[in-house]
Amino acid sequence: MTPIARTPIPDIATLPEDIRTRILTVQEKSGFIPNVFLMLAHRPAEFRAFMAYHDTLMDKAEGLSKAEREMIVVAVSSRNQCQYCVVAHGAILRIRAKNPLIADQVAANWRKADITDKQRAMLDFAMKVTDRANEVNDADHDAMRAAGFDDEAIWDIAAIAAFFGMSNRLANVSSLRPNNEFYAMGRG
Amino acid sequence: MTPIARTPIPDIATLPEDIRTRILTVQEKSGFIPNVFLMLAHRPAEFRAFMAYHDTLMDKAEGLSKAEREMIVVAVSSRNQCQYCVVAHGAILRIRAKNPLIADQVAANWRKADITDKQRAMLDFAMKVTDRANEVNDADHDAMRAAGFDDEAIWDIAAIAAFFGMSNRLANVSSLRPNNEFYAMGRG
Amino acid sequence: MTPIARTPIPDIATLPEDIRTRILTVQEKSGFIPNVFLMLAHRPAEFRAFMAYHDTLMDKAEGLSKAEREMIVVAVSSRNQCQYCVVAHGAILRIRAKNPLIADQVAANWRKADITDKQRAMLDFAMKVTDRANEVNDADHDAMRAAGFDDEAIWDIAAIAAFFGMSNRLANVSSLRPNNEFYAMGRG
Amino acid sequence: MTPIARTPIPDIATLPEDIRTRILTVQEKSGFIPNVFLMLAHRPAEFRAFMAYHDTLMDKAEGLSKAEREMIVVAVSSRNQCQYCVVAHGAILRIRAKNPLIADQVAANWRKADITDKQRAMLDFAMKVTDRANEVNDADHDAMRAAGFDDEAIWDIAAIAAFFGMSNRLANVSSLRPNNEFYAMGRG
Amino acid sequence: MTPIARTPIPDIATLPEDIRTRILTVQEKSGFIPNVFLMLAHRPAEFRAFMAYHDTLMDKAEGLSKAEREMIVVAVSSRNQCQYCVVAHGAILRIRAKNPLIADQVAANWRKADITDKQRAMLDFAMKVTDRANEVNDADHDAMRAAGFDDEAIWDIAAIAAFFGMSNRLANVSSLRPNNEFYAMGRG
Amino acid sequence: MTPIARTPIPDIATLPEDIRTRILTVQEKSGFIPNVFLMLAHRPAEFRAFMAYHDTLMDKAEGLSKAEREMIVVAVSSRNQCQYCVVAHGAILRIRAKNPLIADQVAANWRKADITDKQRAMLDFAMKVTDRANEVNDADHDAMRAAGFDDEAIWDIAAIAAFFGMSNRLANVSSLRPNNEFYAMGRG
Repeated sequence: MTPIARTPIPDIATLPEDIRTRILTVQEKSGFIPNVFLMLAHRPAEFRAFMAYHDTLMDKAEGLSKAEREMIVVAVSSRNQCQYCVVAHGAILRIRAKNPLIADQVAANWRKADITDKQRAMLDFAMKVTDRANEVNDADHDAMRAAGFDDEAIWDIAAIAAFFGMSNRLANVSSLRPNNEFYAMGRG
Repeated sequence: MTPIARTPIPDIATLPEDIRTRILTVQEKSGFIPNVFLMLAHRPAEFRAFMAYHDTLMDKAEGLSKAEREMIVVAVSSRNQCQYCVVAHGAILRIRAKNPLIADQVAANWRKADITDKQRAMLDFAMKVTDRANEVNDADHDAMRAAGFDDEAIWDIAAIAAFFGMSNRLANVSSLRPNNEFYAMGRG
Repeated sequence: MTPIARTPIPDIATLPEDIRTRILTVQEKSGFIPNVFLMLAHRPAEFRAFMAYHDTLMDKAEGLSKAEREMIVVAVSSRNQCQYCVVAHGAILRIRAKNPLIADQVAANWRKADITDKQRAMLDFAMKVTDRANEVNDADHDAMRAAGFDDEAIWDIAAIAAFFGMSNRLANVSSLRPNNEFYAMGRG
Repeated sequence: MTPIARTPIPDIATLPEDIRTRILTVQEKSGFIPNVFLMLAHRPAEFRAFMAYHDTLMDKAEGLSKAEREMIVVAVSSRNQCQYCVVAHGAILRIRAKNPLIADQVAANWRKADITDKQRAMLDFAMKVTDRANEVNDADHDAMRAAGFDDEAIWDIAAIAAFFGMSNRLANVSSLRPNNEFYAMGRG
Repeated sequence: MTPIARTPIPDIATLPEDIRTRILTVQEKSGFIPNVFLMLAHRPAEFRAFMAYHDTLMDKAEGLSKAEREMIVVAVSSRNQCQYCVVAHGAILRIRAKNPLIADQVAANWRKADITDKQRAMLDFAMKVTDRANEVNDADHDAMRAAGFDDEAIWDIAAIAAFFGMSNRLANVSSLRPNNEFYAMGRG
Repeated sequence: MTPIARTPIPDIATLPEDIRTRILTVQEKSGFIPNVFLMLAHRPAEFRAFMAYHDTLMDKAEGLSKAEREMIVVAVSSRNQCQYCVVAHGAILRIRAKNPLIADQVAANWRKADITDKQRAMLDFAMKVTDRANEVNDADHDAMRAAGFDDEAIWDIAAIAAFFGMSNRLANVSSLRPNNEFYAMGRG
């Protein structure tokens, strides 16, 4: 079988306390350790910054729902052909949205997914940030406000798209392998 | 719910005998009618030509395995963002390959899928036919022969990529909706 | 001289009856055998499906004129850099349109050709189907209806663009050579 | 009929002596005034610089043949979808090469044209200059020398590609119309 | 004058202690507050994660030099048309490299900059991560090792490219304005 | 140090009188000989045509200001990654606009530069001419007239974009090196 990633995979027992705890907590909750934790653990300072950034963007209670945040991740990761992120966050999206179809729809072509018009505007904007952030202008911000998003939500969408654009690049360069467990999760 | 497709969906009872029989046969075998049959049925002559072309390319016993033919379909359809084809042929690929992971891997990034080097060469070529057939040259044919494909297999790969490039365009223009049944098929 | 195509070119005498008849009929009518028939003849089942599909799309009496159908073929084939299709269908377009200039105009830049605004809308849509069918949406369909096309004509345009996208890929992969006769046909 | 170009078309009688003479000379030689002369005449200083540049690149006796220089023009102009340049220089290429097929072949897909390997290397380089001059490097120059071109010829190829890249943009912005006479010239 | 950014710019006095300290420290060192600090301060948790990530990637003593890390930032930011990052990190690059020309060279076309072959290999890889991380494969890693980079350095290059890809998107979406001070810094 | 260019650099003393004079004049005025003059001097006829074309487009008194003409050059040259032209014309732009920031802003992302809305419309059009002149149409001309440009100014913008597109290609193919003097000029 393909290895988890190109990077060295440290022995969990040897990791700094806070990182080991984080990993054991996610393992307890999920039943397995998502490989991204193992890929990043060889760089403790980057691990901590990555997770802190991830958590503040993805676990926020106000504004976008958690399912909507995951929709952005799946759409961006599919565009960037990041196998790990499409598979792992596809699973999380199915669970968060309680919808076994949504992740495959968004990954294949978000424009045709069973989502609201407001969510489609959200993904259109996330994809412009992904592909052509250099062209984002007043008209895009106005369109987002017209679609019902306030400035905080617009920043969230852009920040999630930007953060996972980074994450997609790291995972692709490292050939990070999705855990087999993700594929069937949340399929109902 | 989103309709099956933009095209008029005929009443099966009113269809020409051969088309009705084909549809009822697939329904009996699958337990449901894949929506592509209903999308094409409003044009009987095109339905017949499409199915004849499909069957001769996909049901052939020699050369590529049936799972390999479906890998090409999934990779090309993901490139063309055809939701119907990714979802429906993803299901068929899982079943043909008896592998619940393969379709999502190929759809997300075929370069990272758990396939053989020969299969990767096959998909590299199929994607060049999809994206830049105008640049296919002697060196590509030589590389394919070096990878172990004879001229009949090379034609099969190109023809499957080309045929589903057509199919992807029809499904996208019509907003063809994948049947809900496909998502969970072959996930083991 | 460059061979007709990379594919094996069968002896016409050995071909199945229906294929030999089709080829001899076109030879009688045109004075020569267009090379695409020879390229496809090594695969009789694909030959039959291809021709059936071609004929139902291109020989239809209602809706688009035959010249308009050929305009789509020339524009799409030029975009895909298919030498055979540009040259062969350029000849057919000149004849169908009784216009010695039209094919070169459409091949070079359809936006500047001497065609009606409605025909320009037709080609704009055919090119979007060619390049970005994944982005075709309600607004495109509305624009086409506003330009005067009904749903049957819209499907015809999309289907012709999609079918010749397939044909272009096959011809490019096989390095199909246009017959010398095509270049001068219909130049008045 | 579409006008010659968006630009003001001056009365030949009112043009500066040298420009009028140049135009009347080409008219005498060709039997008609190629529209590009009329498009540029509203700017006498630009007309003179353009023609001086054109002549030194295209009328040179040493190195590339005149037919080869026109091949570059046709390939580059087709890539840039310049209707005027493809049609007008296609005619000149047919005449210079004494070959009624060559222009349509090069315009449709230069990779498949009936030209020598050395000429194909020449067009590959001209197209890289057209599309990605920013990436031209030592390896490209080495490959050109290996193909048999000296540094003077390499400059000629690049300069012709670059000059007609400019010319294509001017003609496209002005919607310059090819004279009807060009289409049939040199077709044998 | 254009505002600093679209985001709300908080009063420094009201910021959390650690963020205020960080900002006052950089102000003391540079003589001004780089606007990126003000843009991010409205989101304290993101500010902290961003800076922690930045510092661990950019202030590392081993492997790549600090000037080399800034070269990557300038090349990637120019590709992404991020005005803030090109101008601000261009200044830092000039200072770190003690070279008043290097930043403008790398921003305009890194392939032509006065850098070593090894540095050019570094930037080639950073740009592939930026543009096509989905295609990064064993051959790229082998080429980097052949160029003299170990696996730690390869990760650093990819991580810096990925992190600033994120940073570029945030700055572009927010129309972050470079401080006027940056333009002249390090020009010597 | 990298050589001035790949092309042979002639001894100024041996150049034709008019070219030597032109070069000595610019040297007297600037204090150094811009390398583009030395790159072109090996081809006297091309040198003369290039300079005549350049001067008539860039030194014109009516319509666009000289600073505006240089903005077009910098934006187009940055898009084409022409190091020489970005650095040299960046210097000229700073001087003509009496603005030490403008050139780096336009080079990094013209959409975010401190320019007027009319100037932004000018650069949007120049970039469309650069990237997609084949798609320029009536709507673009109408938009330009609505932005306040007459037909003479529209031609100037297109011609400057087209001319420097040529110049960028020549400089890139020749690896023309910017003189060190340019980098600091006009920085105030």
